[in-house]
Amino acid sequence: MDFSSKLLENAVNEVAQLPGIGRRTALRLVLHLLKQPKEQTHYLTEALMRFRNEIKLCKNCHNISDVELCEICTNKKRDASVICVVEDIRDVMAIESTAQFRGLYHVLGGKISPIEGIGPQNLTIESLLNKVVSGSVKEIIFALSPTMEGDTTNFYIYRQIEKYAIKVSTIARGISVGDELEYADEVTLGRSIINRIPFENSLKA
Amino acid sequence: MDFSSKLLENAVNEVAQLPGIGRRTALRLVLHLLKQPKEQTHYLTEALMRFRNEIKLCKNCHNISDVELCEICTNKKRDASVICVVEDIRDVMAIESTAQFRGLYHVLGGKISPIEGIGPQNLTIESLLNKVVSGSVKEIIFALSPTMEGDTTNFYIYRQIEKYAIKVSTIARGISVGDELEYADEVTLGRSIINRIPFENSLKA
Repeated sequence: MDFSSKLLENAVNEVAQLPGIGRRTALRLVLHLLKQPKEQTHYLTEALMRFRNEIKLCKNCHNISDVELCEICTNKKRDASVICVVEDIRDVMAIESTAQFRGLYHVLGGKISPIEGIGPQNLTIESLLNKVVSGSVKEIIFALSPTMEGDTTNFYIYRQIEKYAIKVSTIARGISVGDELEYADEVTLGRSIINRIPFENSLKA
Repeated sequence: MDFSSKLLENAVNEVAQLPGIGRRTALRLVLHLLKQPKEQTHYLTEALMRFRNEIKLCKNCHNISDVELCEICTNKKRDASVICVVEDIRDVMAIESTAQFRGLYHVLGGKISPIEGIGPQNLTIESLLNKVVSGSVKEIIFALSPTMEGDTTNFYIYRQIEKYAIKVSTIARGISVGDELEYADEVTLGRSIINRIPFENSLKA
C-alpha cells in the first residue's frame, strides 16, 4: 500500500500490529476515526494508555484488577479453600457469568507451550504451589481449555501437588448442551461415556 | 460482560466503538496489549493522536495529506485537466496502484445517502463545480462504487456540469477479469453487452 501521508501510514502500521487486524482493516479503522469528533480518538488513546500503565494484577490470584487484591479475593462470602485454575481473565469472566462457582481463582497467565516458548517459569505456577504448601487449599479445579497445551499444563501442576492431601479435579469434558450427538468428535464422545455421571446430576443447573 | 477492572472496561468500551469490532474482539485486542511491552501501546496511541490532530486535507483535491497540497496535485507531470472523482482516499490508493491514471483526483468525502443523512452539502461537490466553472477542466471521470448511492451522486454532479463543454465519463462496468460468466449478475452482464468495447481495446493493459 502506498500512502499519501506519513501520519496515516504510521497510524495504519501501528493498528495493523494488533492480532487479527490486517493493513486493509487498519486503514478502515483509522479513516473511521477521522470522520468522528477528535474527542473519540482522545478517549480511545487515553483509555488504552491508562489501562496499560495503571493496571495491576491481584496479588493473590493474579487476575487483572485496579487494586492490590481483586474483588473476588476480598469477598468474604467466597470459599478460599477451593481454587479454580484458569488461563486468563477471560476464563474468569466466563466462569463468573455461570454463577456456579463460589471459590477463588488462580490465573496462570497462559499455558505451557514449548512452541510459543512459554515454560512453567513464565506462568504463576510457583505462587499456586505456595498456596497448596501453606495448607489452606482443600480442592484444586483445573479449568484450562482441553487442548494439548492445557492438558500438559494440568499434568505438570498435578505432578507437583499430588503428594498433598487435596482433591484435584478438572471441569467435565463432554457433549455441549444442545449439540447433536452424531456431530460430536470421537474423543469427546468416548470420554463422555467413560466419565458418565449419575442421571440425577444431569438435571441440575 | 462483567469486568473486574474499570480500566479494562473503559479500554474495551472505547475499542468496541470502532466499526466491525465487538466487545469480545475488543477484549482480545486490549489483553494483547497487556502482553506486549508498554512501548507498543505508547506508539499506537501516539500515532493515532498525531494522525487525528495533525492530518490535513489537500486544498485542491481534498485527499488526506501531511501538507497543504498533496504530492499528486503538486506533481507537474500529471494532467490537471483530467479529474477523477472518487469517494475517499482508499479509492485514490486503489486507482494509483493500477498506474493507469495520470490526471488529478477529487475526493468527495462520501456519497450522497439520504439514509445516512449525507447530502450534497456534506461533500466537496461545490469545490468540484468551481474547478469546472474556472474552465481548466477538460474531462471528469466518475469513479464511485456502482451502488445506488454512487449512481445518485454521479447523476447529481452530472446535472450541474452537463452544460459545460467538458467530457464526462464513468469507469467501465462489466465482468471482472478472471470471473466466470455464469456467475455474473444479470445487470452487470446486460450492461457489459450494451457497453461492449472494440476487441482491440480488450488487449490493452
